[in-house]
Amino acid sequence: MLDKTKNGTRIAAVIATIRQRIAGRSLTAGDKLPSIRAFARALQVSTSTVVEAYDRLAAEGVIQARAGSGFYVASQAVPLALSEIGPKLDRAVDPFWVSRQSLDAGGDDLKPGCGWLPPSWMPDDGIRRALRTLSRTDGPSLADYGTPLGLPPLRQLIARRMGDHGIDASPDQIMLTESGTQALDLLCRFLLEPGDTVMVDDPCYFNFHALLRAHRARIVSVAYTPTGPDIEQFAKALQEHRPRLYITNSAIHNPTGAMLSPVTAHRVLKLAEQAGLTIIEDDIFADFEHVPAPRLAAFDGLDRVVHIGSFSKTLSASARCGFIAARPDWIEGLIDLKIATTFGGGRLTAELVLNVLRDGSYRKHMEGLRHRLSRAMAEVNARLKNLGLVPWIEPQAGLFLWSRLPDDLDSADVARQALADNIVLAPGNVFSLSQSASSFLRFNVSQSQDERVFAALRKAIARKR
Amino acid sequence: MLDKTKNGTRIAAVIATIRQRIAGRSLTAGDKLPSIRAFARALQVSTSTVVEAYDRLAAEGVIQARAGSGFYVASQAVPLALSEIGPKLDRAVDPFWVSRQSLDAGGDDLKPGCGWLPPSWMPDDGIRRALRTLSRTDGPSLADYGTPLGLPPLRQLIARRMGDHGIDASPDQIMLTESGTQALDLLCRFLLEPGDTVMVDDPCYFNFHALLRAHRARIVSVAYTPTGPDIEQFAKALQEHRPRLYITNSAIHNPTGAMLSPVTAHRVLKLAEQAGLTIIEDDIFADFEHVPAPRLAAFDGLDRVVHIGSFSKTLSASARCGFIAARPDWIEGLIDLKIATTFGGGRLTAELVLNVLRDGSYRKHMEGLRHRLSRAMAEVNARLKNLGLVPWIEPQAGLFLWSRLPDDLDSADVARQALADNIVLAPGNVFSLSQSASSFLRFNVSQSQDERVFAALRKAIARKR
Repeated sequence: MLDKTKNGTRIAAVIATIRQRIAGRSLTAGDKLPSIRAFARALQVSTSTVVEAYDRLAAEGVIQARAGSGFYVASQAVPLALSEIGPKLDRAVDPFWVSRQSLDAGGDDLKPGCGWLPPSWMPDDGIRRALRTLSRTDGPSLADYGTPLGLPPLRQLIARRMGDHGIDASPDQIMLTESGTQALDLLCRFLLEPGDTVMVDDPCYFNFHALLRAHRARIVSVAYTPTGPDIEQFAKALQEHRPRLYITNSAIHNPTGAMLSPVTAHRVLKLAEQAGLTIIEDDIFADFEHVPAPRLAAFDGLDRVVHIGSFSKTLSASARCGFIAARPDWIEGLIDLKIATTFGGGRLTAELVLNVLRDGSYRKHMEGLRHRLSRAMAEVNARLKNLGLVPWIEPQAGLFLWSRLPDDLDSADVARQALADNIVLAPGNVFSLSQSASSFLRFNVSQSQDERVFAALRKAIARKR
Repeated sequence: MLDKTKNGTRIAAVIATIRQRIAGRSLTAGDKLPSIRAFARALQVSTSTVVEAYDRLAAEGVIQARAGSGFYVASQAVPLALSEIGPKLDRAVDPFWVSRQSLDAGGDDLKPGCGWLPPSWMPDDGIRRALRTLSRTDGPSLADYGTPLGLPPLRQLIARRMGDHGIDASPDQIMLTESGTQALDLLCRFLLEPGDTVMVDDPCYFNFHALLRAHRARIVSVAYTPTGPDIEQFAKALQEHRPRLYITNSAIHNPTGAMLSPVTAHRVLKLAEQAGLTIIEDDIFADFEHVPAPRLAAFDGLDRVVHIGSFSKTLSASARCGFIAARPDWIEGLIDLKIATTFGGGRLTAELVLNVLRDGSYRKHMEGLRHRLSRAMAEVNARLKNLGLVPWIEPQAGLFLWSRLPDDLDSADVARQALADNIVLAPGNVFSLSQSASSFLRFNVSQSQDERVFAALRKAIARKR
């Protein structure tokens, strides 16, 4: 039976189901809707509920009644509402819940659920110096568009950094983008047709779900283990769903903090090869590693693996800059697509990132940051354990702790509760396509330094028990 | 008969035709291709040409032969190649020709065909001051993501500027984007289904064509007159093609430099209302006007008109920042889509733009710039007339002169010729869906200050005569 929606009516749930099918293109303009009786039976609601839902959709112009024949999808498209695509009806476990709450949070709000460092942990001295350097630079850097591929010395530097992780890439295979998210978005546009199937990890970064919905892709997920995706499920999903694409985090996995093992990396690539699968490896947390984990792109040589990254997590999320490293024969097409959809790249932010990365203080800052994160990880983990939360693994590096609430409490309930205290948590199911992480929370240890976080958790747990 | 392609073979033309149909979704996975005989007849080529084209596509895995049954579109999608969507086979009049040549041009190249000012005409003192101010600002401005809508004081300032053009918008109706192009891209995603029809001006900014191809939209065009779109054609196109959207430049039209008259604006809106048409009004050249032209959004009150803009043309193309002003009930959906596809906005560039706009020197700079452009317009126009080029109109403001070559010479030929002299021109047909502007060139008067531009034109004209 359909879950009750927030506003409490089954009618709204039926309406949402129809909207999802239209948005997901399983119903298109002119298609006949299921008969009222059949649909009521399928959704286990009364026929009067379906009648009312169809009437409201007809009043909005989304569907049209044809006398004696039934209801049809109207030909005028309605704007794309991402919140209405996909199976979720509860905004608390919608992929946008965490991002919108975190991005909109005021200065007094606490955000242990967000995915980035507090500004005071970022290399702001380096950024200030880079801004002063830029204020003395030449006119074109300040006022002209970037070249289609983007600033050559920054692409050279990225190629060298990738080399340090065993990935052999020429600067001509690297294209700068406005952000890591935009890199992924461009690649989805380049590689996907609406209705194509894409595989993600379960759990995975929640915005992968949101982005794929925007591309009207079918999403399937494979359980993530402490050493990478579950290989048996991976093989089975390839056979069953023939996905076009697999999107994953390398290095430090979001949200679990797990690391891919060389054995799993090799198996994933072998299966991908057999199935003609393309893989996008999002390496956004590279600079947090103490010891580099294996990269799929290193094993594969950028043949069927596309490598993307950005500087939002370690340098600045305010000065946006990301990149794509891909096989050379894809670069021309990607450039056309970048020009069509964003025109010239953001030259100034690329110059800023280059200046900070070149600044001698950056490496030292990152070393200090990694140790600070290790200490915070140990402290936060200890405090959470005290409250009865059990970590799925003890991550070796990064920002994230993926911890299970005691007594299988529902993390969406706890998150709603905490929001009343101006604390933004990240409930497990926003990361899980299968909705199988309902008792997990993702903690960003750098944003969990305030006593109020633990007090609110204690309160929410006590209330729910 | 099909045009010969650059590499001189009819086979390539047949291959391109099939690819276009696949990319444009008129052939999808599993569809049967036309029979060799029928297709040869339709394209007026020999059957052996079609056989060879099908064989090559089969070798690439794009199509598959089934014994005794014919050829079928393969189920594995091929990456989206924008250069292959749409009717054009000649890269010289492809929408990417001008943008790629201009963005890739070296320091010694001249680009009278490009769409932006030389860096030395931009307010670089203001930008330098703003960078120094930013280097002394707080941590969150330097390192944190922007809020979903974007920097509040910049949205307030944009609302006031829109008010000066008679457009009543609250800051909550304004969402910052990474650029004007990204604003348009987000709106297309929000409003279009693949296969929807979009109307543009003929001629119009060439990147509208490229962007709409990326959205797999059907494009129709309406002739532009010196006072706006041809109203009879506009009405007829609405009836015949039922477009979902009309995209146009307000204020100073690109490439013609024309201005919408109040009468035409009123008629366009009346027809749009009858047809349920949404209009996107791109106001990117607002700051170049001496006297404000009517805005569709001002007449309409941001009901069916969405207003977009950016600061790339007058402030900096290196620090990217654009905006969307739309009806309040669309803003939530647009925020979700922005987060899904770019996550946080570029806060640093928004802060930079705000600082420059607030700097007392900006208004004075713009006054000087407008006069400098007026002088350049008169000079360049006089020199072009000397060479036999006739302006379509005498623009009242802006950067662009839309001029016709003598003797109906082909501007793509002239542009190819000029490129050998490292001069990037903008041939008319890149702006024209109907390919009816073959003897026009768009000149950016600020980039036509070098004697070599006119020498190269003289040479190319003499050679072609």
